[in-house]
Amino acid sequence: MKILVNPDKKIWKKELARPVQKTKDIEKIVKPIMKKVKRQGDKALRKFAFEYDHVEIDSIMVDPVDIKNSGKQVDKALKDAIKTAKSNIEKFHKLQESPPLSTEIMKGVTCMRRSVAIQKVGLYVPGGTAPLFSTVLMLGIPAKLAGCEEIILCTPPDQKGQVHPAILYAAKLIGITKVIKAGGAQAIAALAYGTETVPRVDKIFGPGNQYVTAAKQLAAKKGVAIDMPAGPSEVLVYADETAIPAFVAADLLSQAEHGADSQVILVCPSEKIVDNIIVEVNAQLEHLPRQKTARKALENSVAVVIDDMDIALELINEYAPEHLIINIKEEDKAVKGIINAGSVFIGNFTPESAGDYASGTNHTLPTNGYARSYSGVSLDSFVKKITYQKITEEGLRGLGPVIEVMAENEQLMAHKQAVSIRLNYLDKEKK
Amino acid sequence: MKILVNPDKKIWKKELARPVQKTKDIEKIVKPIMKKVKRQGDKALRKFAFEYDHVEIDSIMVDPVDIKNSGKQVDKALKDAIKTAKSNIEKFHKLQESPPLSTEIMKGVTCMRRSVAIQKVGLYVPGGTAPLFSTVLMLGIPAKLAGCEEIILCTPPDQKGQVHPAILYAAKLIGITKVIKAGGAQAIAALAYGTETVPRVDKIFGPGNQYVTAAKQLAAKKGVAIDMPAGPSEVLVYADETAIPAFVAADLLSQAEHGADSQVILVCPSEKIVDNIIVEVNAQLEHLPRQKTARKALENSVAVVIDDMDIALELINEYAPEHLIINIKEEDKAVKGIINAGSVFIGNFTPESAGDYASGTNHTLPTNGYARSYSGVSLDSFVKKITYQKITEEGLRGLGPVIEVMAENEQLMAHKQAVSIRLNYLDKEKK
Repeated sequence: MKILVNPDKKIWKKELARPVQKTKDIEKIVKPIMKKVKRQGDKALRKFAFEYDHVEIDSIMVDPVDIKNSGKQVDKALKDAIKTAKSNIEKFHKLQESPPLSTEIMKGVTCMRRSVAIQKVGLYVPGGTAPLFSTVLMLGIPAKLAGCEEIILCTPPDQKGQVHPAILYAAKLIGITKVIKAGGAQAIAALAYGTETVPRVDKIFGPGNQYVTAAKQLAAKKGVAIDMPAGPSEVLVYADETAIPAFVAADLLSQAEHGADSQVILVCPSEKIVDNIIVEVNAQLEHLPRQKTARKALENSVAVVIDDMDIALELINEYAPEHLIINIKEEDKAVKGIINAGSVFIGNFTPESAGDYASGTNHTLPTNGYARSYSGVSLDSFVKKITYQKITEEGLRGLGPVIEVMAENEQLMAHKQAVSIRLNYLDKEKK
Repeated sequence: MKILVNPDKKIWKKELARPVQKTKDIEKIVKPIMKKVKRQGDKALRKFAFEYDHVEIDSIMVDPVDIKNSGKQVDKALKDAIKTAKSNIEKFHKLQESPPLSTEIMKGVTCMRRSVAIQKVGLYVPGGTAPLFSTVLMLGIPAKLAGCEEIILCTPPDQKGQVHPAILYAAKLIGITKVIKAGGAQAIAALAYGTETVPRVDKIFGPGNQYVTAAKQLAAKKGVAIDMPAGPSEVLVYADETAIPAFVAADLLSQAEHGADSQVILVCPSEKIVDNIIVEVNAQLEHLPRQKTARKALENSVAVVIDDMDIALELINEYAPEHLIINIKEEDKAVKGIINAGSVFIGNFTPESAGDYASGTNHTLPTNGYARSYSGVSLDSFVKKITYQKITEEGLRGLGPVIEVMAENEQLMAHKQAVSIRLNYLDKEKK
């Protein structure tokens, strides 16, 4: 971990640069995969499952009976934990509902807005060494709350051609009935184009490796919406002498174990605090199963000593971290000063893992500086907000002339005419 | 205008296909322009102004004095109209504010959410024969309401190197002080990369031709957010015998005059209604200044006769129109049945122009079927929703074990450890 002491603002950008992702070469690999799925549908999915997941699968879709029975193969402790997490996530996302709006803007001119669920959504849950059932919860719960009619979950099959029961159990709890055994770019292609088994969806959600991300970006060009551009995960911890070094170290490591390209930034008001934390990081690192990954990630990582809080906040906002842990005495002041972050964790007893799993907030968050302009996934991500208006005769008499003048000055005479013809009609009617 | 009577569902997609946009060739033209702006900054903007707008400009930025004095050069009638429109748009967008959320999910686990303005936004207002001050209102008002710190407006200069006073007047009313004389892909590049005069922004908004759209898509790849993928404008009118044919015709033409690639769809329960409307379209067309454009657009356009309302709604939802005018007797039933549309106009006295200019709703809406997954521009488009959480010692005692079980089952042991280390600490403290 590199340590910078009161670095000049000019070098912030360079020193805190995220590991670069090469997208161009990846697109070259992803494009033919997507094309094949578009043309050959399920057949291509089976072919790629054999090629990449090393398994022959007969049916692309998980048997509903397996979903129904999934609970039998999951430990009670895990089932209970998933239930608690589900309940918390549901509570917080339910709170995000936007009630319908309606207002009479002028006499006889009523404008309204209503949230309407996106009909068909695709949720991607990556494979790997462990079943990411938490992602099923984070995407599936708001999709269900929003009222999406069709929810398709794609996840790569294991070497036996199965989907892990914990994933199926989370899906079952939420009420997801369509689980597709497909991973990588081919899964995204199936969601984007549709196959015999997989319906074409309107929006694709979920994390994934660079291939999945590239495929999502290509899908976005073809008219399918995506949740957000995804990059490697990252955390910034802002800690002072009130923070417990062992806790901060554990938080840094929990981010670092995600992947070698994860980034971890530490901001402290003094070098001594940094030193204490680094001692703890090294001690804890020894006992981690993913030690190698975490070490790699720590190589990309930086500790910055900034004694002035305003400057520290400026640096944090410029970096725009996906996860931000604020562990300082004046936490209220810091929280108020944050304008760019995905999700903020406050105080000594709020580890990032809480939000990753079970406290209620969503864990699908903007990485790579996108927190400057993007929000994390929320109930909003699964709805469109449609506006409506109704104007009465009286309303058009009042507003019509305004529209006529504006349309005329933009030289859109048919726009004007659409009003004039109605006003003339009303004039005649009056006589 | 082609007429289809009760067409088979299988041919809907083909028959209602939007005119195809070629993006690949356009990217080839746009890329070098963007690269030049990235490298040469203001100098490149001046060069492109000379090349494309045929004018030599000294200062890229409009003199604030010109903004201040713009009102003197604008007719009182237009100023009053702009003021009324501004007031209506403000009222409706103010209503869209999301209050901060805060809830205690479990004892000691508090989750919050807060809307925070995107700091720097770029608004693009296209040039052309007339000044599009309505776009200044539609983008500038929510940007200002959201509290964006830096609002940069880009618009191409006229042949005298000036920006039309009506645009400056609208900007002044809103409180926009930075107006940049730049159009096309070069303007988007300036907003995406920054130049000596133009700050790099976090999100770019606004309509434009294919070059602007391609530039926005390229900017999106470089980490700048964009409002939405933009395509040619479109309207679908659903009219029955209660609709006044001359009104419907005027609405269809007001869309058709936008551009040769605009699309206009008419859905009616009987051929007779279609015929009556087409007679009116042809009569009104004669008197339009943009007759040629409108005729071209009508060539891409289709009238569909569907006597069954449920099937008609199904077709409308499949098409997902940017603008939808519902002009039928059972309007409530139709409105309820609509799940895919940008903005909906209800009844005989609600022309689309009302929403284009002055009723209060936003006119920046999803085209090209994106209404299936995208909302129009709203106050939400100018904010991020950041989540926060704070967990007390008691809270972590309750939630911690849930997180531990989940993290362990996802094989993320450092995630588990971030909780365990805290729980151990609390245990020791207790003793």
